[in-house]
Amino acid sequence: MAPATIGNSEFDRDTALSPRERGGYDVHLATGWTVFGTVNGGYLLALLGRALGDSLPHPDPFTVTAHYLSASRPGPAVIRTAPVRTGRSLSRGQASLFQTAADGTETERIRVLAAYGELDGLTDDVRTTAEPPYLPPYDRCRGLRHLDRAAVPVPEIVDRLDYRLDPATAGWLAGRPSGRGEIRAWYALADGRDADPLSLLMAVDSLPPTAFELGLTGTVPTVELTAHIRRRPAPGLLRIVKSSRNLAGGYMEEDAEVWDSRDRLVAQSRQLARPQT
Amino acid sequence: MAPATIGNSEFDRDTALSPRERGGYDVHLATGWTVFGTVNGGYLLALLGRALGDSLPHPDPFTVTAHYLSASRPGPAVIRTAPVRTGRSLSRGQASLFQTAADGTETERIRVLAAYGELDGLTDDVRTTAEPPYLPPYDRCRGLRHLDRAAVPVPEIVDRLDYRLDPATAGWLAGRPSGRGEIRAWYALADGRDADPLSLLMAVDSLPPTAFELGLTGTVPTVELTAHIRRRPAPGLLRIVKSSRNLAGGYMEEDAEVWDSRDRLVAQSRQLARPQT
Repeated sequence: MAPATIGNSEFDRDTALSPRERGGYDVHLATGWTVFGTVNGGYLLALLGRALGDSLPHPDPFTVTAHYLSASRPGPAVIRTAPVRTGRSLSRGQASLFQTAADGTETERIRVLAAYGELDGLTDDVRTTAEPPYLPPYDRCRGLRHLDRAAVPVPEIVDRLDYRLDPATAGWLAGRPSGRGEIRAWYALADGRDADPLSLLMAVDSLPPTAFELGLTGTVPTVELTAHIRRRPAPGLLRIVKSSRNLAGGYMEEDAEVWDSRDRLVAQSRQLARPQT
Repeated sequence: MAPATIGNSEFDRDTALSPRERGGYDVHLATGWTVFGTVNGGYLLALLGRALGDSLPHPDPFTVTAHYLSASRPGPAVIRTAPVRTGRSLSRGQASLFQTAADGTETERIRVLAAYGELDGLTDDVRTTAEPPYLPPYDRCRGLRHLDRAAVPVPEIVDRLDYRLDPATAGWLAGRPSGRGEIRAWYALADGRDADPLSLLMAVDSLPPTAFELGLTGTVPTVELTAHIRRRPAPGLLRIVKSSRNLAGGYMEEDAEVWDSRDRLVAQSRQLARPQT
């Protein structure tokens, strides 16, 4: 079987757009990208990101903010986009994802505000002072796909991804969370498709939450997430490091950094989340 | 003269709203809050924040994202708000600020997407692991207001604020930037008004840019800024620490943390900016 490529992969098929005649896009929220039945926020962000890239004059996400209004369920959805302002190097746009109830009423699930540009048009100067995370070798990191599903509940999305957690951030798997709000992992798509700016939108929000290493065990719904895509990622494994430092008052922030195989900091995000325990 | 208080201060007068009969608010962008003639982004964010708090069911900003579309100039402006979704603990809303040209055409300057809640309704549990910044005592930090304006150009907004920079992050003032993308400062309003959630929206984006300590000397316009307001600040001086770690490809991120006098991390923000040198 030929390896998956950008444009021909599970991720591309499950984030495909069907333009409607009168504007907007029909999409299908695939069951494979869920976390115990709820559609994953990163997958939704990537889907909305694809719609915006298709509809705006500039192709690549630069900064994307999503407000998650209510949980999306697998099945049909509609994305509507609108341009906000077009400049020479950046276009601003807005997008919403809707789902229709049995009685025909439409509910807005997510609203996005974004700036798009051309990543390949950026200059090559790099003065990044952040340093890539240290992770143990891939083979010594912990994946979830091999776990006995009868013993450990594993989200459906795990089979779409190939991530391996730094054991130092995987204590929660054995009921021994470290108490530090950190998750570090190697990350790729299960079918081998390389990363691209759209899959980066998913990468920032498709790993286990840092909350698990803080000893929280319930769901951690995202209120808002803002992602900056700073460079087209090189082929090969990504490294993702997430951290939370301000769990207080029933809310927490979670920061993510995504590093590519050439040690470039290709994406950064921060979300505000509301842990349910 | 009686000290300024929340509700009766320069900041309150210059962010006042005049509701229009048919919806929206007339506002006046005051010249005192500019940086060499351009209206400061943090002041604008606070103004839009006030309009959203007035129009939404919940009073306090929780997460606010602003896209800056074009520079605002001092003078009249109109803010229009729209609810997006109202829940029990959070309301989502959107707002835009417009200015009208001499020929009558309206230009949208800023678009905001936000979630509002009730800060006083948050639980008291605090598991923040972030630590407040160390700053030298206020009297040993560097202010700008005393500088000889004939020798050193000082932005107009400096006279509205009372901030004192950690000398270790003020080398740029003497043409000796540290090369580290950091700014640390004590921060208050010049007339003594205490901080509140709305002035925190300004605080995250009204100090000199970290770019200056990286040796950049031009303007650093904000593309997008997202602020999280996590707690009503206690009275007294704030401490703000800003950092940038990913200057690359002609863009940079700038993170800000705002700490109150009780060592609480009351606000966090990240912006994507485009330095002009």
